[in-house]
Amino acid sequence: MILADKTPNQTPHLPLGDQRTSPWYGKSIVSVKQFSRDDLTYIFEVAHEMREMVERIGTFDLLKGKILANLFYEPSTRTASSFTAAMERLGGSVIPINEVKYSSVAKGESLPDTVRSLECYSDVVVLRHPEIGASALAAKYARKPVINGGDGAGEHPTQALLDLFTIIEEHGQPDGLTITMLGDLKHGRTVHSLSRLLSLYDVRLNYVSPEILRMSSEIIKEIDEKGIPQSEYNELEEPLPETDVLYVTRVQKERFDDPEEYEKVKGAYVITPATLESAKEAMVLMHPLPRVGEISMELDDDPRAAYFRQMEYGMYVRMALLAMVLGKA
Amino acid sequence: MILADKTPNQTPHLPLGDQRTSPWYGKSIVSVKQFSRDDLTYIFEVAHEMREMVERIGTFDLLKGKILANLFYEPSTRTASSFTAAMERLGGSVIPINEVKYSSVAKGESLPDTVRSLECYSDVVVLRHPEIGASALAAKYARKPVINGGDGAGEHPTQALLDLFTIIEEHGQPDGLTITMLGDLKHGRTVHSLSRLLSLYDVRLNYVSPEILRMSSEIIKEIDEKGIPQSEYNELEEPLPETDVLYVTRVQKERFDDPEEYEKVKGAYVITPATLESAKEAMVLMHPLPRVGEISMELDDDPRAAYFRQMEYGMYVRMALLAMVLGKA
Amino acid sequence: MILADKTPNQTPHLPLGDQRTSPWYGKSIVSVKQFSRDDLTYIFEVAHEMREMVERIGTFDLLKGKILANLFYEPSTRTASSFTAAMERLGGSVIPINEVKYSSVAKGESLPDTVRSLECYSDVVVLRHPEIGASALAAKYARKPVINGGDGAGEHPTQALLDLFTIIEEHGQPDGLTITMLGDLKHGRTVHSLSRLLSLYDVRLNYVSPEILRMSSEIIKEIDEKGIPQSEYNELEEPLPETDVLYVTRVQKERFDDPEEYEKVKGAYVITPATLESAKEAMVLMHPLPRVGEISMELDDDPRAAYFRQMEYGMYVRMALLAMVLGKA
Repeated sequence: MILADKTPNQTPHLPLGDQRTSPWYGKSIVSVKQFSRDDLTYIFEVAHEMREMVERIGTFDLLKGKILANLFYEPSTRTASSFTAAMERLGGSVIPINEVKYSSVAKGESLPDTVRSLECYSDVVVLRHPEIGASALAAKYARKPVINGGDGAGEHPTQALLDLFTIIEEHGQPDGLTITMLGDLKHGRTVHSLSRLLSLYDVRLNYVSPEILRMSSEIIKEIDEKGIPQSEYNELEEPLPETDVLYVTRVQKERFDDPEEYEKVKGAYVITPATLESAKEAMVLMHPLPRVGEISMELDDDPRAAYFRQMEYGMYVRMALLAMVLGKA
Repeated sequence: MILADKTPNQTPHLPLGDQRTSPWYGKSIVSVKQFSRDDLTYIFEVAHEMREMVERIGTFDLLKGKILANLFYEPSTRTASSFTAAMERLGGSVIPINEVKYSSVAKGESLPDTVRSLECYSDVVVLRHPEIGASALAAKYARKPVINGGDGAGEHPTQALLDLFTIIEEHGQPDGLTITMLGDLKHGRTVHSLSRLLSLYDVRLNYVSPEILRMSSEIIKEIDEKGIPQSEYNELEEPLPETDVLYVTRVQKERFDDPEEYEKVKGAYVITPATLESAKEAMVLMHPLPRVGEISMELDDDPRAAYFRQMEYGMYVRMALLAMVLGKA
Repeated sequence: MILADKTPNQTPHLPLGDQRTSPWYGKSIVSVKQFSRDDLTYIFEVAHEMREMVERIGTFDLLKGKILANLFYEPSTRTASSFTAAMERLGGSVIPINEVKYSSVAKGESLPDTVRSLECYSDVVVLRHPEIGASALAAKYARKPVINGGDGAGEHPTQALLDLFTIIEEHGQPDGLTITMLGDLKHGRTVHSLSRLLSLYDVRLNYVSPEILRMSSEIIKEIDEKGIPQSEYNELEEPLPETDVLYVTRVQKERFDDPEEYEKVKGAYVITPATLESAKEAMVLMHPLPRVGEISMELDDDPRAAYFRQMEYGMYVRMALLAMVLGKA
């Protein structure tokens, strides 16, 4: 046996060298509501350092020896891949778990039991689940930090963080910016969470959508109470020239009772080179992806098109969060 | 090219530095029947050192550069994740193979051919397969060690080892203990294998089950020949006070021809805080998981509840086995 | 934060230390048509060094910190595992993506968008896709190198390279050899690509197949123009004694309109110990695997049986290609 001598210590299950004094150490990331503006500033500082480290040296061993259980109850290639890449670029390892539905869960195991089993093998758990509140439930029972990778119609906090980080990396900071959100603002989980985060800054928000897909009044009220100016439009034409960030989401045909209604409006929510003629040169065009025609591929080489950079920023944000909850940032 | 100069050596496919003199080096782990009491002592010594190393430093590079092919013909989140974590905590890498059924095998490839192909890429193969004897067949043809990760109604030797290791870690050692097994003892692969392993020690075994789910007479006979005292019960009440380890398994409704029969007995096989009132303070409550109501969640915080620790011990046992068959322990 | 100080550099997304002057750096591998004989010589020199390094020390950290996105739109256990092992043996990491069909793509995302998203997280993409031209399309849009892991009835260039590398490792070099291909030469993607590569050398090619599964006239014409002697046969008997490499492929029943026709010919395409009695002692017997009865298992211990070694050579070729396109060879 080439291992070290037996020792009688019975320390808790924490490796040495962890910065256990960090306020983020061991914390779960469940909702955007848990972040103050100072929290965001810190997360994005760490994420920015991650970006610079990756650009300079590719990967580094900050989380060497740490294991992420990537627990996906429904497929999400992009989110799963992004967390996997984040962990691997920090020198950590990943247990990919994609077939939960075929396995013990099919035998009737509860979510808390599944999470408490998997945390025995890992240091942090990312959970993607189709039901609202799944991550909060998991975090309640888990001894290790749980990161919400999307819980159905609930939240997808790392998406909201990467959206805001994109705005910061592209524009320097959000204060003073006019952000225009376009498309299905009623059902869009991403625009709801992003609006909430932006309301911590000095911004102006425009909402452009068909009548039946307006931003929910609950969110408008919540944001209004923070003193953030908000305006609603049917067409992009009017708010576009003053827009610093145009955030596009998909308008799905299935949302309309009357298919003719959909046909009438859909053209207004497709961005083409012609659309952007009246936009600022420094405007940033975002989309959570996947897109299905909402933004013309002809725009992909336009320097304003930030949606693929947005993907990459997502990896840096997830690197930051993993490092933070594991006590290494 | 930054690699070293060409060299004419034609050594076999073994990296330098392996401890090829170890009796475990290159061995397959197919059945609990292959272990003597001395073997078990050695495995659990190594597993205990693994536990201490993980608790102190998280991971280490004992198997750096080694590759595990994790070949699962049927899903088993827990077993697959445990082997993945075991390999990664030792610095090794994993090839996860979960879609065998959709791939070459669907084209009619034999199990020996699949295993002989995958061992070309890896240093050790873990095989989960729905058919009895699959691992023995694979081990017969493979040049690299094969570890049985469960072969249908056959064996699941690493589960049996982790069950015994749990008893040892929780109680110090098994001699003198009374182990009571509860539930479906007829079909339960885990209780069969664990009984066999325990019969190498000086223990007393109690079996508590409905009439139709009695421990198989073949196993009772086998264990009796080793001089181990065994007793059968319909109810837990009588043997509980003298029990040092209570091993609970699920009683499945489908096992009963008459649903009324099931309704009558099922309550007797659910463990609650009230059940444990007459149990020893130092008793250890085990379950192979997943549970579906056999043990009340109210007991999860009871120090006797060892089932999640049991999961974690499983990782240490698998770390030990991987290190041993790869000549590194 | 234990990371380094912020630095203002905005270098492109390339780690330091890359050998960016290599002609292979950043290149995609889409088709065998892109290789000259000198290219092949170089690839196989690197692959041979990979073999020696693996045999001597198992793995090494040439691609430490690099990430491969292993993007499989259809399952292929062998190809996916081989690339995973290749990357891991070089110290790199893998993002396994097997469920594309259930995920964003199901939402209608285009292949270029999927690839451009995943390359944000990775340094190189391996793409397996059921449609001809998928890899060429992906390579056109990607900023990172794309390696074709098979595009339907199109090409599978790394299979062709590993076939040729097998011939070179087993025979020293291809010049002067007689290679006999047997089976379904009409539909066999592997024999088409291998013939094209072999036409760069001084070889003699024999084609043995049923009438209706003859080598395509287009390929025969293409190879004839290079001055390579080619002969067609219905039976293996005549060309076997002069054969240095026998490359066997499967004859599928479904290719025949008349099942009786299939029954008549199938026996002629099964290799047994009796078949090989008239073969050279130094002949090499190859098969792309999986086999379904085309080669008798009795031959597996015959030193001429190279089909499992062929699997292993495939890993070395893929290690070489990964190192080359990442600027490390």
